[in-house]
Amino acid sequence: MDTNSTGLVPLHQTSSRKRLDHKQETICIFGTGDFGRSLGMRLLKSGYPVVYGSRDPRNSTLLPSGAQVFSHAEALNTSKIIFLAVHRENYDFISALSDQLDGKVLVDVSNNLKMNQYPESNAQYLSQLVPKTNVVKGFNTVSAWALQSGSLDANSQVFVCGDDNPSKQLVMDVARSISLTPLDQGSLLAAEELENYPLQLFPMWRLPLYITAGLTVFFFLYYVVLQVIYSYVTKNTDQTYRMIISIPNHVFPIVSLILLSLVYLPGVIAAFIQLRRGTKYKRFPDWLDRWMLCRKQLGLVSFAYGFLHVFYSLVKPLRYTHYWKQMNRIVSQVQKNATTELEMKWVWRSDLFYALGILGFFVFCLLGVTSLPSVSNAMNWREFRFVQSKLGHVTLLLCTAHAGVLGWNFFLKSTRYTWGLPPGYMLSMVIPCIVLILKLILITPCVDRMVTRIRQGWERKRKDSSNLKV
Amino acid sequence: MDTNSTGLVPLHQTSSRKRLDHKQETICIFGTGDFGRSLGMRLLKSGYPVVYGSRDPRNSTLLPSGAQVFSHAEALNTSKIIFLAVHRENYDFISALSDQLDGKVLVDVSNNLKMNQYPESNAQYLSQLVPKTNVVKGFNTVSAWALQSGSLDANSQVFVCGDDNPSKQLVMDVARSISLTPLDQGSLLAAEELENYPLQLFPMWRLPLYITAGLTVFFFLYYVVLQVIYSYVTKNTDQTYRMIISIPNHVFPIVSLILLSLVYLPGVIAAFIQLRRGTKYKRFPDWLDRWMLCRKQLGLVSFAYGFLHVFYSLVKPLRYTHYWKQMNRIVSQVQKNATTELEMKWVWRSDLFYALGILGFFVFCLLGVTSLPSVSNAMNWREFRFVQSKLGHVTLLLCTAHAGVLGWNFFLKSTRYTWGLPPGYMLSMVIPCIVLILKLILITPCVDRMVTRIRQGWERKRKDSSNLKV
Amino acid sequence: MDTNSTGLVPLHQTSSRKRLDHKQETICIFGTGDFGRSLGMRLLKSGYPVVYGSRDPRNSTLLPSGAQVFSHAEALNTSKIIFLAVHRENYDFISALSDQLDGKVLVDVSNNLKMNQYPESNAQYLSQLVPKTNVVKGFNTVSAWALQSGSLDANSQVFVCGDDNPSKQLVMDVARSISLTPLDQGSLLAAEELENYPLQLFPMWRLPLYITAGLTVFFFLYYVVLQVIYSYVTKNTDQTYRMIISIPNHVFPIVSLILLSLVYLPGVIAAFIQLRRGTKYKRFPDWLDRWMLCRKQLGLVSFAYGFLHVFYSLVKPLRYTHYWKQMNRIVSQVQKNATTELEMKWVWRSDLFYALGILGFFVFCLLGVTSLPSVSNAMNWREFRFVQSKLGHVTLLLCTAHAGVLGWNFFLKSTRYTWGLPPGYMLSMVIPCIVLILKLILITPCVDRMVTRIRQGWERKRKDSSNLKV
Repeated sequence: MDTNSTGLVPLHQTSSRKRLDHKQETICIFGTGDFGRSLGMRLLKSGYPVVYGSRDPRNSTLLPSGAQVFSHAEALNTSKIIFLAVHRENYDFISALSDQLDGKVLVDVSNNLKMNQYPESNAQYLSQLVPKTNVVKGFNTVSAWALQSGSLDANSQVFVCGDDNPSKQLVMDVARSISLTPLDQGSLLAAEELENYPLQLFPMWRLPLYITAGLTVFFFLYYVVLQVIYSYVTKNTDQTYRMIISIPNHVFPIVSLILLSLVYLPGVIAAFIQLRRGTKYKRFPDWLDRWMLCRKQLGLVSFAYGFLHVFYSLVKPLRYTHYWKQMNRIVSQVQKNATTELEMKWVWRSDLFYALGILGFFVFCLLGVTSLPSVSNAMNWREFRFVQSKLGHVTLLLCTAHAGVLGWNFFLKSTRYTWGLPPGYMLSMVIPCIVLILKLILITPCVDRMVTRIRQGWERKRKDSSNLKV
Repeated sequence: MDTNSTGLVPLHQTSSRKRLDHKQETICIFGTGDFGRSLGMRLLKSGYPVVYGSRDPRNSTLLPSGAQVFSHAEALNTSKIIFLAVHRENYDFISALSDQLDGKVLVDVSNNLKMNQYPESNAQYLSQLVPKTNVVKGFNTVSAWALQSGSLDANSQVFVCGDDNPSKQLVMDVARSISLTPLDQGSLLAAEELENYPLQLFPMWRLPLYITAGLTVFFFLYYVVLQVIYSYVTKNTDQTYRMIISIPNHVFPIVSLILLSLVYLPGVIAAFIQLRRGTKYKRFPDWLDRWMLCRKQLGLVSFAYGFLHVFYSLVKPLRYTHYWKQMNRIVSQVQKNATTELEMKWVWRSDLFYALGILGFFVFCLLGVTSLPSVSNAMNWREFRFVQSKLGHVTLLLCTAHAGVLGWNFFLKSTRYTWGLPPGYMLSMVIPCIVLILKLILITPCVDRMVTRIRQGWERKRKDSSNLKV
Repeated sequence: MDTNSTGLVPLHQTSSRKRLDHKQETICIFGTGDFGRSLGMRLLKSGYPVVYGSRDPRNSTLLPSGAQVFSHAEALNTSKIIFLAVHRENYDFISALSDQLDGKVLVDVSNNLKMNQYPESNAQYLSQLVPKTNVVKGFNTVSAWALQSGSLDANSQVFVCGDDNPSKQLVMDVARSISLTPLDQGSLLAAEELENYPLQLFPMWRLPLYITAGLTVFFFLYYVVLQVIYSYVTKNTDQTYRMIISIPNHVFPIVSLILLSLVYLPGVIAAFIQLRRGTKYKRFPDWLDRWMLCRKQLGLVSFAYGFLHVFYSLVKPLRYTHYWKQMNRIVSQVQKNATTELEMKWVWRSDLFYALGILGFFVFCLLGVTSLPSVSNAMNWREFRFVQSKLGHVTLLLCTAHAGVLGWNFFLKSTRYTWGLPPGYMLSMVIPCIVLILKLILITPCVDRMVTRIRQGWERKRKDSSNLKV
């Protein structure tokens, strides 16, 4: 560069030199495994000199060209930032380097094989080994593959935590300059969470899936009793084939509707709690908080079941049983030698039933699409709430009406009960109806005004707190 | 930069100290509502000392631990950057602090309850109250909830505007270090737009939805006349049940096809305007610009109606009327005691009709998926144009053909007209056919070459402007 | 805070002044076409003074207000960074400015009309013209439209490459401050790739689409022989109408299933190669690498065909041929004057067939949704692998079983062969069955343990390499 030709150094050149120097800061990597190599490759590409520290520098192969390899102690001296890409079981050698590491930044990128495998996080353990070194946890959520490919698809977020802010900041700068997006997660206490993160398997989905599994099993058995066992006991006919399509197609819509109502139930409960308390500045009970946090997942499982219900219903005319039933009905009709009248009542019931079902499914699809991260990010808060709350309640209303039309006028006639058990769709309508009625109360003008005031920061008792932001 | 003051300190340490200092810059927040508290929490997590300014410091509760609370005047002295998380109605106290605020950066994060509630934006009003303070508008599009959760889902974009560039830059740096993505929106004049932004409800969707509503109502009434009123008047039969599924399933495809053609009409109009003018360096008329800007929304509404049409059609064999019609037809067939021949003409018509419909829907789904932000971001400009223009015209062609096959050979036979009104699908084909014919003209080699040259910057009159980038 | 160590200037003010100066660094743009104008507009908005260099400064119109226009030589002197928004054919004038450009940063943003149009990249050619200038390639993947609109939708990634790191860094800083996300692509050698990038048309899709086209044509002709020509030759009946829906609805599922198995075949092959080699530290053969890289695309094409199969199947009861066949069957049934028994075998076959098909399609939809960039980014590596590998193999199993049930007990009966040709669904099951059997071997505990150990870095020969990261 032209540092020599600049004389009095105009400002932009200073700034460029500063950056040059910053860029050329050597980075040291301990560990020559997949991750160490990929990280080195990416750093070299962005102009950082890279030095590897290895137990056996002469036998280290497969390292990216342009990088140097030294012993651990030598490598250490070249750099302020050391990435430790080594399994926790091999941390011992670090203690011996304790003095040399004094004041340096040591980045722990390790992961374990199981969650909470050790009493403390790897990073905290490391920090105890070399207490005078600034340990920063980070990069463990990034895969070696993502580093190598520099793929646009790959998640570029890097979680970083550490007790020493400037050290953390340095590491975040390195992340930024190799085109990753660092996210500060606070002090080293967060390391445990960061180490568990890549080992998680859909933690937010666990509760919704358990609820779904429970409901599914219950209603499946309920319908096995209603349709298979009842037939066998009373008529001695084998209806086991119903377990493949007919019964699932009762279970899917029922569970879907219940789950959908469970998405909107905590919202109305929360509103009533706020109304009673007269303030929003009190925490909700824990169970409500946890419930609210898994609403999205509940909604998506409900949608999945609705999707299955749609296709299980649409194949009906293709099934052998449908053909067989229709044929026999027509043959017996012919033998009676009479054309039937179109009964308007049944036409309305059938058409309303399908129209409500399709519209419900359609609005549900809209909800599903807008819950995609890239779509919901393109909306502002008011739009997102409009879709997820307004359209959500419309979906619930349509789907509940869809179930209600199925019952029609013989809704509560006990003659329809098998062994005294009500049809499943009736059971499925209990919670949705409760949610809809409570919601109806909440949107009456006077109650709505009260809720809105509370949500804008107004409090029933101390009315002086006016400078609150909504 | 303070390179001169650093003496012997090696470079990376300077850089680390500098960052340390920058990080430790205290941030002051006025207002202890939801937003103020959430912002403070996030700042503390990233290592900023946070000081709250409060009217009543001793009674300020619920503040994040680690933050200090002072009176407004005291808090002010600790920091260069002050976030004002207070409603506009409570801005008066700021005037009294005018002198102390001199030269400082005051960030207005306020929102209003209605769009354009006041003659000038809150930020401009604030700027008038304290003219010597550098007012920056920003953060108002971020929700308190997003700040607290630090959620990956949440939109991390922060719009910022202000008249003083360095102040704006400081605020953008703060945003960046708490892992948000600042977007510079220019001078304080943009504040009005920023304040209106979170109050908007799908502004780009308004025009397309009005058009859709108009077309839907028109064709619904058209078909009520054709199918319900006509039956009642001439045959005295009650066909009102048709309004549930039959008529909507005429209206959806018709409106969908018209909307789809409206997506591609402005493009061909624009090409013809450019051809006539012989240059692309003239603005299009305003109505065309506005039309072009809502093409995506028009397309998505068209897709939604197409989606409804698909499912309204697929439930047909499940409906009671379908069963009833088929049964009566078969019974009367049996009474005639004859098997019918398979009429090839009807086979071809039926199969072509459905095949074109499915293919049209399929390509339409591709268009829908590629219009998802995260998918279109993964494509380059050429790929995006290929999908949205080439595949879009293929969709239009397939859907128009789908409608055309419905008409078959009795297309213009006036005997099919009820009360002299042509069937709706004919009306729906007018604009699509115009678009397809115009497009056909545009892709003939000689016209295409001319349009391409114009779009690459060539101009009919002054041919000297060669250094233009496509 | 070290405000005391900085003399009279408080630290935040230094830092703000530094940024102010940095911001005010003038940017020079050569070329007043679309791109040059849009870039200037965006730079001005973010507070940069912008100077255009033009051949004919007095006749340059349409430039953004606030920008100045000079001759090339004059413009050059105002700025350290020059954006060259000019077609390669007009680069000659640059040579004349060689001396003035000495030490400056020249950003080549040009694109060509065809891929590999010239022997060397534009940026390398430019670098030869002015060897003492620091040429940086970049911004060419950003469209003028995206720059102008500042749209949230638009891709904000800016690829940058260059031989001089500080220059590259300066350009990346400019990108960042106009809210774009720069990605360092290494040295100027990468310029060719960057210049080809915007001219690419789905390069990763080419191979999968060729395979799909080949399979589609083959199976289409195969079924034309089986269903059309065979009928014509042996029964002299015209079955050409089958080419519209019946035959495609055989071809789509067959090709879909084969493609799906091709997604998972390379994975099992790779596992067996690693098992045989006893190490993961050897590169796979090239063909396997290339195959692995297009798995996502193969899967999506397979999904598209599956989607078409679903809808081609669902319209079956709506088709004229279906109605005609059913009617004739019923009429002949009536003439025999007998109701038939429900044959349980057919009921099970039909219901199992549809249930497996729907479940397969459902899990396939899950795979499709999770392959959306914004969804897969929200998952960690373990979750992504769970979905794409576990759920993927479940999909393959369900779809293969769906095809198998179609064969039922007459699976290999040669009486079902037309002209000695087996039905297509049998052919489609060959590769899926191979993949499933190989996968079954791989998940047996002893083999699985071995593969896992190898993938965690263990090697059969040299067991000393223990500090490897998984």
